[in-house]
Amino acid sequence: MKAARFHAKEDVRIEDIEEPTPGPGEVKIRNAYSGICGSDLHIYFAPESAGISFDEPHPLTGSLPPQVLGHEFSGTVVELGEGVDSVQVGDRVAVWPIYYCGECPACEKGMVNVCRMISFHGVMSNGGGMAEYTTVPASKLHVLPDDVDLRMGALVEPMAVAWHAVERSGIEAGQTALVAGAGPIGIGVWFALRARGVETVIVSEPSAERRAAIEGVGATTVVNPAEEDLTARVQAETGGRGVDVAFDAAGVGVAVTSALGELTPGGEVVVVAIHERPLELMPTQLVMSETAIRGTLGYLQSDFDAVIQAMSSGGYTSEGWVSEVPLEGVVEAMIDLRAGKRMKVLVRAGA
Amino acid sequence: MKAARFHAKEDVRIEDIEEPTPGPGEVKIRNAYSGICGSDLHIYFAPESAGISFDEPHPLTGSLPPQVLGHEFSGTVVELGEGVDSVQVGDRVAVWPIYYCGECPACEKGMVNVCRMISFHGVMSNGGGMAEYTTVPASKLHVLPDDVDLRMGALVEPMAVAWHAVERSGIEAGQTALVAGAGPIGIGVWFALRARGVETVIVSEPSAERRAAIEGVGATTVVNPAEEDLTARVQAETGGRGVDVAFDAAGVGVAVTSALGELTPGGEVVVVAIHERPLELMPTQLVMSETAIRGTLGYLQSDFDAVIQAMSSGGYTSEGWVSEVPLEGVVEAMIDLRAGKRMKVLVRAGA
Repeated sequence: MKAARFHAKEDVRIEDIEEPTPGPGEVKIRNAYSGICGSDLHIYFAPESAGISFDEPHPLTGSLPPQVLGHEFSGTVVELGEGVDSVQVGDRVAVWPIYYCGECPACEKGMVNVCRMISFHGVMSNGGGMAEYTTVPASKLHVLPDDVDLRMGALVEPMAVAWHAVERSGIEAGQTALVAGAGPIGIGVWFALRARGVETVIVSEPSAERRAAIEGVGATTVVNPAEEDLTARVQAETGGRGVDVAFDAAGVGVAVTSALGELTPGGEVVVVAIHERPLELMPTQLVMSETAIRGTLGYLQSDFDAVIQAMSSGGYTSEGWVSEVPLEGVVEAMIDLRAGKRMKVLVRAGA
Repeated sequence: MKAARFHAKEDVRIEDIEEPTPGPGEVKIRNAYSGICGSDLHIYFAPESAGISFDEPHPLTGSLPPQVLGHEFSGTVVELGEGVDSVQVGDRVAVWPIYYCGECPACEKGMVNVCRMISFHGVMSNGGGMAEYTTVPASKLHVLPDDVDLRMGALVEPMAVAWHAVERSGIEAGQTALVAGAGPIGIGVWFALRARGVETVIVSEPSAERRAAIEGVGATTVVNPAEEDLTARVQAETGGRGVDVAFDAAGVGVAVTSALGELTPGGEVVVVAIHERPLELMPTQLVMSETAIRGTLGYLQSDFDAVIQAMSSGGYTSEGWVSEVPLEGVVEAMIDLRAGKRMKVLVRAGA
């Protein structure tokens, strides 16, 4: 079968590999769509920074490169391994891609999304979404309802990252939010906030393309912080109170420190982005208004369930911010993504 | 009457001023003890950094220097203003010293401790604890039970700062904590944690005097981070999990960033100290374990109630870390405190 495999830094090949067979408890999926994630770019351009080991097999999955890419994917069940009765052939599914140890302090608390040994299907595993087929444990499948198509199914994963961040923030209907950064995760935060009944959402984004994208999905209060006074806008939109929660989906230090200044007393900045550089924090800024900075990462299976349900309720659209490429276009798309020329790209894998 | 009054930078005078008279709703107190706080040192050595204005009267209290110092104080009620029936002459009291506007976003949420216009009795007000007498609104008084003496009464305020931080952290009995810094606030955090049933408390403190002080009140796991591997000790004491909450009562950047590394997944660093410099934060450190940094400031009246009750239950001692000076000794004591030669000093005001 055809697959996009990562071999080494800036070396991803489209090649023919053996079709996998589902073992006991596993399911074989004909992959449909597979999103390209920021972490795929890290794998391609700086694999060590993405935690890819070329020497030691992953302790949980035993995998080593070459690695089929694709951890944000959807597909259709085509074969059941021994003992699987939770899904049926023909089911359309999204795959919760996390492998966790079950024993570390994080897993002990149910925080398997920050497991010390975490791996992802399509990052360090026996396969991935950017191939015609893959096999995964049946426990990782989330069946898509009829009104959620396979294209949307591949967006469940990035939307779950954002949903999880919103969930961890504890924000409630009637409260107010700032979203810094309108890339795919910022858009996902916007969708998740709306699904929770948060009406006042201010989006801050310096890129004109990204502002247009989030306005395209329905955001009405979108600020270019390079030209407009963000603080004045936040004050105006929140009756002078500041926002209850600010989400950093930008990954730059200034997004975090400026967001701190937009909080209401007791408010919180939730960092959902990955930062490459340290930032300068004045702790007294947290003390004087009893505010906080919280990090969030990944998602639980419950976040997948919640996103699929919200998609089924019509809360999401892929119009205007998601494009598609064939499997052969994956490397070009990664180069475009890194250059900021595209927003979100789905690879048509076996589709 | 005799009073210690702040006039200007490094200018505090012991002088004779007029005895105050309680207005309607106010109470006249014969002051007993008044603690010297870190913020008193800021007022004395760098008044602008402490928010002292020499030009504009405080918007809530109308005060301008010269200012009677002393916002951590206890005393005995000697006269009731018109309409006061909540206390009686002879009651021994601690004074909750906050003046708040009641209208800002913080006050709206009941977070009067971070009111935008906050002032403190003894900082920007019509009097303070470092005089023979002062008058305060009756609503600010907390009557001390028979088994809490006036010396302990003057410690309610700093102990409430620590109590509030512990309260905001949400830590529960059976969880684990790290306390960075064993000055008066670190000691207060230790007392508050014990009162809440937190048994595993690791204290990190480079100063031998401060380690001895907190050991003197009962701490058993006290680490000198300059000589011992703090992480190894935290791992050993927490069964390899890390602590649920770390309290920064040190006020130096390294205390915060190293504390982040000692947290269990989902844990929190609570900054209760005032920092003079920014610190370098790698946001990914928060993301990878879904941890947080939270600031806390001051106290509510409920924290005063809780501390007084815990003192009455025998949970506090002033042995070994609290010393006394007469009113005339206040400047010398401030110089000693700044030099790290003393831990906590109570000024005998009208006592």
